[in-house]
Amino acid sequence: MAEALAFEDFPPGELAEYGGIEVTAAEIIEFAHEFDPQPFHTDEEAAQGVTGGLIASGWHTSALLLRMNCDAFLTRAAVIDDPGIEEIRWERPTRPGDRLHVRRRTLATRVRDARTGEVEFHYEVVNQDGLVVMSQRSLLVLERRPQRSGA
Amino acid sequence: MAEALAFEDFPPGELAEYGGIEVTAAEIIEFAHEFDPQPFHTDEEAAQGVTGGLIASGWHTSALLLRMNCDAFLTRAAVIDDPGIEEIRWERPTRPGDRLHVRRRTLATRVRDARTGEVEFHYEVVNQDGLVVMSQRSLLVLERRPQRSGA
Repeated sequence: MAEALAFEDFPPGELAEYGGIEVTAAEIIEFAHEFDPQPFHTDEEAAQGVTGGLIASGWHTSALLLRMNCDAFLTRAAVIDDPGIEEIRWERPTRPGDRLHVRRRTLATRVRDARTGEVEFHYEVVNQDGLVVMSQRSLLVLERRPQRSGA
Repeated sequence: MAEALAFEDFPPGELAEYGGIEVTAAEIIEFAHEFDPQPFHTDEEAAQGVTGGLIASGWHTSALLLRMNCDAFLTRAAVIDDPGIEEIRWERPTRPGDRLHVRRRTLATRVRDARTGEVEFHYEVVNQDGLVVMSQRSLLVLERRPQRSGA
């Protein structure tokens, strides 16, 4: 198995692009039935008058960002803590048939102690028309690579 | 049908408590398989060594907060916009068998224009032992009640 991704693998200023997930009406409705049963997320007809057709729960788009992060790096990273989210903005709705990818920028990094460091990421979820549907700023605490002793 | 909940129905300082959702291991694993396939969310055995047993994805706990909000007030509220999240903190893991409820405080309200107002909520998700597992601060834009004209 490849070595886990460490704090040093996310240099400040780095831009990464990945993902490519298509969202279906059935998935939008299924997520909403379980977690966000507002009519414009669960019922195409009711949504017509309110939002011009079915739109995904913002939290569904957030969950899809999480999935793309897992596939791209998160399951291979030496995560110590995932303490929370600094900001989410849902800028445009996700609609059935949309194809989403991620633009991730490393805003800042900070050594915490001999073993761990903190990385601040800014994510944008972008649809097939190049429009940002959501952005998120959040922190991740990762293991540092073992430091060489001596010189 | 009862009148929709308006801006005026969420006075500053108000505290509301509601919810009561039990989380099963099967639900934790199902959510994680779809959105957050890290081993401590999907595999009881792998989780033993890392997190002392299976824990829910933080985003699963967030989705359960959303569901409790929908059931308590959100699907009955005259929501104009749900622009995003100011902060999430995952303070403790949610584990199989946990029973969660919500403590919601209205931090501040602000009239935007003749028709709409903004409400800032602080939510805590609390488990059966009275411990806060997550907190969230977010804004909601709601319709104001029609103002009486004249005097």
